[in-house]
Amino acid sequence: MPSTLNAPTTTTAQEIMERLHLLAQHTEQEGMMTRTYLTAAHRGAAGQIAAWMRDAGMTVRRDAVGNVIGRYEGTEEGRAVLMTGSHFDTVRNGGIYDGLLGIILPISCVAAWHRAGKRFPFPIEIVAFSEEEGVRFKAPMLGSRAIAGTFQHAVLNNTDEQGISMRDAMQAADFDPAKISAAAAPKDSIAAFIEVHIEQGPVLLNEGLPLGIVTAISGASRFMLELEGLAGHAGTVPMNIRHDAAMAAAELALFIEQRCSNVDGLVGTIGQWQVPNGATNVIPGRCTLSLDVRAGDDAIRLAAVNDIETELARICSKRGVRSKLTKTYETTSATCAPWLQDGWRTAMALNNCTPRLLPSGAGHDAMAIATIAPMAMLFVRCGNGGISHNPAETMTTEDAGIAADVFMDFVENFDAVAAKASASN
Amino acid sequence: MPSTLNAPTTTTAQEIMERLHLLAQHTEQEGMMTRTYLTAAHRGAAGQIAAWMRDAGMTVRRDAVGNVIGRYEGTEEGRAVLMTGSHFDTVRNGGIYDGLLGIILPISCVAAWHRAGKRFPFPIEIVAFSEEEGVRFKAPMLGSRAIAGTFQHAVLNNTDEQGISMRDAMQAADFDPAKISAAAAPKDSIAAFIEVHIEQGPVLLNEGLPLGIVTAISGASRFMLELEGLAGHAGTVPMNIRHDAAMAAAELALFIEQRCSNVDGLVGTIGQWQVPNGATNVIPGRCTLSLDVRAGDDAIRLAAVNDIETELARICSKRGVRSKLTKTYETTSATCAPWLQDGWRTAMALNNCTPRLLPSGAGHDAMAIATIAPMAMLFVRCGNGGISHNPAETMTTEDAGIAADVFMDFVENFDAVAAKASASN
Repeated sequence: MPSTLNAPTTTTAQEIMERLHLLAQHTEQEGMMTRTYLTAAHRGAAGQIAAWMRDAGMTVRRDAVGNVIGRYEGTEEGRAVLMTGSHFDTVRNGGIYDGLLGIILPISCVAAWHRAGKRFPFPIEIVAFSEEEGVRFKAPMLGSRAIAGTFQHAVLNNTDEQGISMRDAMQAADFDPAKISAAAAPKDSIAAFIEVHIEQGPVLLNEGLPLGIVTAISGASRFMLELEGLAGHAGTVPMNIRHDAAMAAAELALFIEQRCSNVDGLVGTIGQWQVPNGATNVIPGRCTLSLDVRAGDDAIRLAAVNDIETELARICSKRGVRSKLTKTYETTSATCAPWLQDGWRTAMALNNCTPRLLPSGAGHDAMAIATIAPMAMLFVRCGNGGISHNPAETMTTEDAGIAADVFMDFVENFDAVAAKASASN
Repeated sequence: MPSTLNAPTTTTAQEIMERLHLLAQHTEQEGMMTRTYLTAAHRGAAGQIAAWMRDAGMTVRRDAVGNVIGRYEGTEEGRAVLMTGSHFDTVRNGGIYDGLLGIILPISCVAAWHRAGKRFPFPIEIVAFSEEEGVRFKAPMLGSRAIAGTFQHAVLNNTDEQGISMRDAMQAADFDPAKISAAAAPKDSIAAFIEVHIEQGPVLLNEGLPLGIVTAISGASRFMLELEGLAGHAGTVPMNIRHDAAMAAAELALFIEQRCSNVDGLVGTIGQWQVPNGATNVIPGRCTLSLDVRAGDDAIRLAAVNDIETELARICSKRGVRSKLTKTYETTSATCAPWLQDGWRTAMALNNCTPRLLPSGAGHDAMAIATIAPMAMLFVRCGNGGISHNPAETMTTEDAGIAADVFMDFVENFDAVAAKASASN
């Protein structure tokens, strides 16, 4: 049965949207949403979030990487935490919902329970992760990795554009780098981690659905591809004896597009594409490309990469073009725990929502936490074609309300869902 | 019947090759072939060419743009000139045959006639055009346009990289810009213009033929193409709802390749290809390309351009991508006079050469002279895959000998060929 506290959801939804806009005032650049790690804007946002957590009846602590952690105590002693949250840093000139929704929405839900005097057997912790985007120090997911115990201490030496090291920036902000290891969550202390996040894509928007259940956070394979053919005079070399490096790239691009289409959750992108020193009247002798392949299912991704490599060899052989493919990055996918997906499904059924399943092509804090706890994500529809990392990023108050209802029903049914999962094991 | 003066051609061929290498010493950059308009290297080359012309029994004059004109007087008064020649400037770090062959080869042929005491009823003029490549002042074919009477006086204000105007450079070299108009050849003073030139492409090399008869100098249509789709996250936007500007470019590129293949003399090239600010994880929202289409036959070129525009519209409509196609340059083709092509065919038959017909995809001085006189070109095979505008440009002594034999037979049969053409009109 739906949460009895859901009415009036309009108030909760309006509060969420108002707070997202209030929080946007903490920015490094007037008129833009830019809030990078440990800046004044970042400190201001952390203080505001902590205040709202306290208003919601939570105790608040900060750890050594600057995560703001609100705890809504449970009624039974010694129970593992139901953790939720997302990040409060942003990209430069980004949107106000990316990350923030997953902090502000749970706070408003806890506030509603707090007003109603409702507590759960288990504690709830909302983590406002201090860093996820990797903008200032070119190292992402600092907050969630600290809690997962996978923080890479070498990145403390990374410097920002002003030459300030992450270590110095932390000390200046009164965070002790030596204590980052202590931020790691104790073994088995987290029963589950759930993250509410805007989709950052157009799938839900195009299908007219407010919410989606994430099946997995996609793994990714990234490459740089250098093609070398033979430059020549655009007027004097007949088509059939050319070795045009850009034409080889074009043929590969269309193969990638065709190969990735119609495979659920598989995407392939050539984001960088250049003919170095290209001239109008010269046949391209070289072409350099980036290649990014992602899928929620690692086997699907690796099969696609394999087929792309095979096709690349065929194209290059046919065209007399040499290729050098260099892998620059690879991550495996993180599967959302099926029993937590069931929890979303149950909560969505209570609110008459179609349980659309989709992978997350973007990385999220949940990916880091997945290494220490079962994890699941709820996607909320974006407007404006699904654009994100952009000032045009948007979502509706109505969707915030539906997401809050589903989130509350998920939490209220959490013990039942966990028990059912446990019984079926 | 073949020229009786052709034996021993080896001597003529060796002289041609030796002189091409000697002339290469007049360069702006040690170890490279760079000779741009009105530099010291350019003056040195002009002096050497003039000396060889005089040795060949020619009278030499220079006109106001610096053309070096050698005249081998005819036996009949008042006859129109049989003009030949090519340019003695080069691109930066170019080859030593481009242009120069069409000056040095005729000088050696005239020298052979001079040694044998042979003259023709008509005068022969060899023009060493002072400027064709357009490197120093970004204006090409200055020498041949002056003789054609189509010199654009506005380019006198063009400046080189040091800020020196063409006008000042000419005056410093003792050429009077006010007298350029006087360099124009009087009406009907040129019976025909023939130009010997390296092919600058791989067609003859690939077919094992030393010489080719040029049918026309290709016309060209050049465009800049801007494609605008919708940028998006490489991980979150499914393939089937993307508006990827670079994918539209890739599809157009392959269409151009397919459309231009197997149409004789038609070529299409995308030489510049860029995704501005492209990033590995961003779907290209923009893509900019150059497009160059050439054909010896204008109707073939324009039909191809028309089909490319139609396909561009289809691709953009299908993909939800906008396009802006801007024409940056257009020239019509210059047809080589059929009766002069017949003259080459006759001369080649006398030397057992297969008369391979091909268009010239590159521009040449003959294109400018075509506006005032019938024109034809003889192509000589390049080595090294046909590369030109490059230090790797090359040709063989043997081919120089064959070309000299054919050139001499052409001249010796010129009056007969002209009479036959005249009779059939």
